[in-house]
Amino acid sequence: MKRYEQLAGDIAESIANGTLPPGARLPSVRQTTANRGVSPSTVFQAYYLLEARGLIQARPRSGYYVASGAAGVSEPEPSRPSGEQQDVEVSELVFQVLEHMRDRDLIPLGSAFPDPSLFPLDKLAMAQSKAMRGLDPWRTVEHLSPGNPELRRQITLRYLATAFAIDSNELIVTNGAMEALNLSLEVTTRPGDLVAVESPTFYGALQALERLNLRAIEVPTHPRTGVDVPVLATILERHLVKACWFMPNFQNPLGSLMPDEAKQALVQLLAERQIPLIEDDVYGDLYFGTHKPRPAKAWDTQGLVLHCSSFSKTLAPGYRIGWVAAGRFAEAIARRKLMSSLAAAVPSQEALSRYLQQGGYDRHLRRLRLTLLGNRAAALRSIAKHFPAGTRASPPEGGYFLWIELPLGVDALALHWLALANHVSSAPGHLFSADHRFRRHLRINFGQADSSELEMALKLLGKLAGSLVQRTPRS
Amino acid sequence: MKRYEQLAGDIAESIANGTLPPGARLPSVRQTTANRGVSPSTVFQAYYLLEARGLIQARPRSGYYVASGAAGVSEPEPSRPSGEQQDVEVSELVFQVLEHMRDRDLIPLGSAFPDPSLFPLDKLAMAQSKAMRGLDPWRTVEHLSPGNPELRRQITLRYLATAFAIDSNELIVTNGAMEALNLSLEVTTRPGDLVAVESPTFYGALQALERLNLRAIEVPTHPRTGVDVPVLATILERHLVKACWFMPNFQNPLGSLMPDEAKQALVQLLAERQIPLIEDDVYGDLYFGTHKPRPAKAWDTQGLVLHCSSFSKTLAPGYRIGWVAAGRFAEAIARRKLMSSLAAAVPSQEALSRYLQQGGYDRHLRRLRLTLLGNRAAALRSIAKHFPAGTRASPPEGGYFLWIELPLGVDALALHWLALANHVSSAPGHLFSADHRFRRHLRINFGQADSSELEMALKLLGKLAGSLVQRTPRS
Repeated sequence: MKRYEQLAGDIAESIANGTLPPGARLPSVRQTTANRGVSPSTVFQAYYLLEARGLIQARPRSGYYVASGAAGVSEPEPSRPSGEQQDVEVSELVFQVLEHMRDRDLIPLGSAFPDPSLFPLDKLAMAQSKAMRGLDPWRTVEHLSPGNPELRRQITLRYLATAFAIDSNELIVTNGAMEALNLSLEVTTRPGDLVAVESPTFYGALQALERLNLRAIEVPTHPRTGVDVPVLATILERHLVKACWFMPNFQNPLGSLMPDEAKQALVQLLAERQIPLIEDDVYGDLYFGTHKPRPAKAWDTQGLVLHCSSFSKTLAPGYRIGWVAAGRFAEAIARRKLMSSLAAAVPSQEALSRYLQQGGYDRHLRRLRLTLLGNRAAALRSIAKHFPAGTRASPPEGGYFLWIELPLGVDALALHWLALANHVSSAPGHLFSADHRFRRHLRINFGQADSSELEMALKLLGKLAGSLVQRTPRS
Repeated sequence: MKRYEQLAGDIAESIANGTLPPGARLPSVRQTTANRGVSPSTVFQAYYLLEARGLIQARPRSGYYVASGAAGVSEPEPSRPSGEQQDVEVSELVFQVLEHMRDRDLIPLGSAFPDPSLFPLDKLAMAQSKAMRGLDPWRTVEHLSPGNPELRRQITLRYLATAFAIDSNELIVTNGAMEALNLSLEVTTRPGDLVAVESPTFYGALQALERLNLRAIEVPTHPRTGVDVPVLATILERHLVKACWFMPNFQNPLGSLMPDEAKQALVQLLAERQIPLIEDDVYGDLYFGTHKPRPAKAWDTQGLVLHCSSFSKTLAPGYRIGWVAAGRFAEAIARRKLMSSLAAAVPSQEALSRYLQQGGYDRHLRRLRLTLLGNRAAALRSIAKHFPAGTRASPPEGGYFLWIELPLGVDALALHWLALANHVSSAPGHLFSADHRFRRHLRINFGQADSSELEMALKLLGKLAGSLVQRTPRS
């Protein structure tokens, strides 16, 4: 990473964490030159980059200021689910909606993946070539479950970087986080069991419950701070919950981040009742703050947290490499994996193991976070400008999803189909709850390589949403 | 493929299909030179190769003769399962046995994979390098389920080569055949349902039933001709069977091959009752006869056969690419796959698609079949020579498994542990039935790159089996 990128990254983090609030004046070029010991041209380059990303704005003869960002867009209300047990039946709708997302002419605001051109795919391909050339043939059969030992070592090292250790024996490589999560659910439940999920929650979690004939109970979730642990405690008093499936870091779709104390309280609460926590942490590396948030697993002393993650959203889409640090369930998961898909692909494991060994992942992540942070600012500005009055959106502290609450009367599914006809996809809120309660909500993916496309698509979405408001004046 | 290899392959096929029976004299070098229009040195090279493989033997001043092969080893009895429904609980034993198979110091006669050095792994790695370099990034997200279109086209073409067509829309790429089979079982059954399987059957099938809480009913299976269709008909009269999981081609562990008429009768019988057939056909390309046997799917007119296969046993171990031609269940399977593992790895799909496009797979297969056929002869000779009297083994028409029936009184599990202590693994018959009835049977993998290792290991196994006979004189 170049020096000016490093500087821009530091300033972007200060903006993200509020040290530099919207409207604040940036230090002058002279000051920064002196403070950081860099050349004036480095400072200029950093400021130009931040300006290009939409994070700061130049005012003539006055200097640079933090862009106004989300001014005028307030946060959605915390959710208030029914508190009742529910059968899950979302798949049909999910498939109907997702089926239409593969078209390349779409601007894919409904996609679950960031723009794949944001990833170092050529470097990965090179790492793979090197690793596979002359590979010892026996590694193609030896590195079945639990997976390539060097890859597992590299993953274990990354846990250490967030200040806690896992036992490499509890680590199982999987076909992406999706398989890790599904296996975790399979070994902790039996058909008919009750599982606690967030509200709203990732539709993939609901589909997994549906596939295994499990019932859901939804827990109130705050758009900024995530699962409401005290309410969860009362739910556990009243219902026989067999497992929880939560995303403490940058929840999909909310983007919420549970504070450390809440994570700790959650793990303690579940430990008292010996309830396993399936922790979906695929966005943790995409933080906008000063450091990577720790997973709830960091507070787990009993092996009850199954921490699932992958490289699909941060480095290597399509390689299908994820993992679970499964605590006391590790052997059960390794066996279940051998029985269902046997193993993750050896070439993918070799590629990632080589790439991680040679370094460069953290540099890539810093760049990716800066892009996403700039896009977040652009998206919030677009929403403030183009969406109908009363629209709410919560600026996430990481990841690439915005959860938008539209004014009363706007049906997000109607908006979705309307926008699709105009070559913009979105993920309507209906997908994110077993009872389809989020009918005027949208999940927007701001992980675009081209922020002008993002702004154009949001402008269109906003106009269409406005037209739906006008058509339903009495709601 | 070189000219002498082609000639050797033709002669090997004549030996395999009985045109040239054990003891028959081969045409003289002069005759063959004239008949085939090749040079004498080509004929000599072919004969040397066949001799090195153990398929023919030179007699001084007399010429070459087909090796005596399996003389003295007779075929095991057809199985006679109980005919009752059974709960399935084999996994614990399977894992206990398989756990000890990864040791590289072992001669892995218990392995489910051929020796990986028999595969063109360098060529695959090269194809992968080429395909991944400069890959359009969007392909990493577009080629999720049902899979890479070019790979699916190549697979579809290979069906045409066995004289029937499938609709490419019914083809779904999976993480190996294991996932294809499991998904097939998931979409055709519900927990508690009854599934018909062969006797003996692949332990992976039993594990899949166990995982999904299904019950098994085992069908008598002939070591040469496979499932007894008339008996299956009577079973279907008496029991509510929801699906069948069979391997008509080179069954694991028997090596049996159902004749075409039996396959046709099977498909008709199941069509009358609208029972889906999950057809496991991962060894079909490894035939020793003159042509690739057709799958039962070839007679399917109603979309009731889910034909599952992969490249893991024939070309690309560890790449984890399989598929299912799922007939009327195609959409259900595609969706179920999206919900559980999302997709097969893009680099693996790209590698295979490129490799198949550039040609060379059939040439590799011819070579591999020749090696396996030579090993089969070596294995049968070793068994005849070193195993205790009364040992039976059926020479399979394809694949790389031999099913050995030991004399009364020899426990195959005891033999397994004993052999393991001597660095030879095997797959005891206990693993291949829900009621563990095959207690004096062994599955032997003859897919070794070094046939002298194979012979050494079989000699050891035979001696150990003999010692167990002597220890139990009264059985």
